[in-house]
Amino acid sequence: MKLYDSSRAPNPRRVRIFLAEKGIAVPLAPVDLMKLEHKSEAFTRLNPRQLVPALELDDGTVISETIAICRYFEALQPEPNLFGRTPLEQAMVEMWQRRVELELLLPVMSVLRHLNPAMAALEVPQVPAWGEANKPRISAFLEFLNTELAERAFVAGAHFTVADITAIVTIDFMRAIRAEVPEHLTHILRWRNVVSQRPSMKA
Amino acid sequence: MKLYDSSRAPNPRRVRIFLAEKGIAVPLAPVDLMKLEHKSEAFTRLNPRQLVPALELDDGTVISETIAICRYFEALQPEPNLFGRTPLEQAMVEMWQRRVELELLLPVMSVLRHLNPAMAALEVPQVPAWGEANKPRISAFLEFLNTELAERAFVAGAHFTVADITAIVTIDFMRAIRAEVPEHLTHILRWRNVVSQRPSMKA
Repeated sequence: MKLYDSSRAPNPRRVRIFLAEKGIAVPLAPVDLMKLEHKSEAFTRLNPRQLVPALELDDGTVISETIAICRYFEALQPEPNLFGRTPLEQAMVEMWQRRVELELLLPVMSVLRHLNPAMAALEVPQVPAWGEANKPRISAFLEFLNTELAERAFVAGAHFTVADITAIVTIDFMRAIRAEVPEHLTHILRWRNVVSQRPSMKA
Repeated sequence: MKLYDSSRAPNPRRVRIFLAEKGIAVPLAPVDLMKLEHKSEAFTRLNPRQLVPALELDDGTVISETIAICRYFEALQPEPNLFGRTPLEQAMVEMWQRRVELELLLPVMSVLRHLNPAMAALEVPQVPAWGEANKPRISAFLEFLNTELAERAFVAGAHFTVADITAIVTIDFMRAIRAEVPEHLTHILRWRNVVSQRPSMKA
């Protein structure tokens, strides 16, 4: 088994943290995105979508998509549980994981990829107006998340889950677009302080 | 239990088909998107993200996000299985569901929302260049999906799954952007013909 990884990109970090929470060690194979190694012929044979992370199993099967890789390990080794236990918990984790991914991570990535000249080879064509349109979505979602975190310890409920992993990785990654969590969002800052102390965060 | 629904939008249709496949009946509450009912105060109290579908449980809990609602019902009633059984099957269904959603449904919605003047009140601001940038992504993903469907009966493997639901709903919805599956993509057309005959497709 081998995990194709990139040290600076947010999605591979989500998988590394997930594996660290599970206590599972998987050999990493680095892919240099800035050298466009993910668009090479060799990597395209592994993942035709040219995205990291990708997990290659010993029989050659490749699983791509961050959350698909995480679910694979959750099914293989259910404890510690990171996707919820009861039907309602599972639905809430899925809902929050998706909300954070689609309404925070995707806007952050859109700002980075459409407004940063260093991304011109990765995002073709860059549409700066689309990058700008995503900036207020980030602020709006953070306000919403802050009101939700006023009522509970973690993003999807009383326990740390994969939704917290997506959220902390995204919020840490906001430094790539020179954005920060505003100081008045004290519930996010309290949550961030707690989550950042987990040993898995160094992964 | 009540499902907030919109008859013409693709995401609520994904849930209706999923429920029909399971043989589960849930009362529908229509939300008129063109009248911006999803942005009303009453609906915003139910789902602060102002999106349909949303499932309201009898105790007032609301689950939003199409796939979160589907997973809730999969956990409550596992058969017929639509998210995969073994760890690898579950990963493949998740991977394909996400690929179709992020690389086909999202581009189709982006073309519609950023290029159709009738969507100006729903998509603020419209960025026509972003709509245009998504057109070639649709064609490229359909070509890829066609080569994959040359090798198996359904999107994620040998069985019909939630990944097929996302794919058929998206491909049917392409008529909203006046796009069609090109005639040379014969494997998609064969798959579409088979899937379209399932009774659930009328949902």
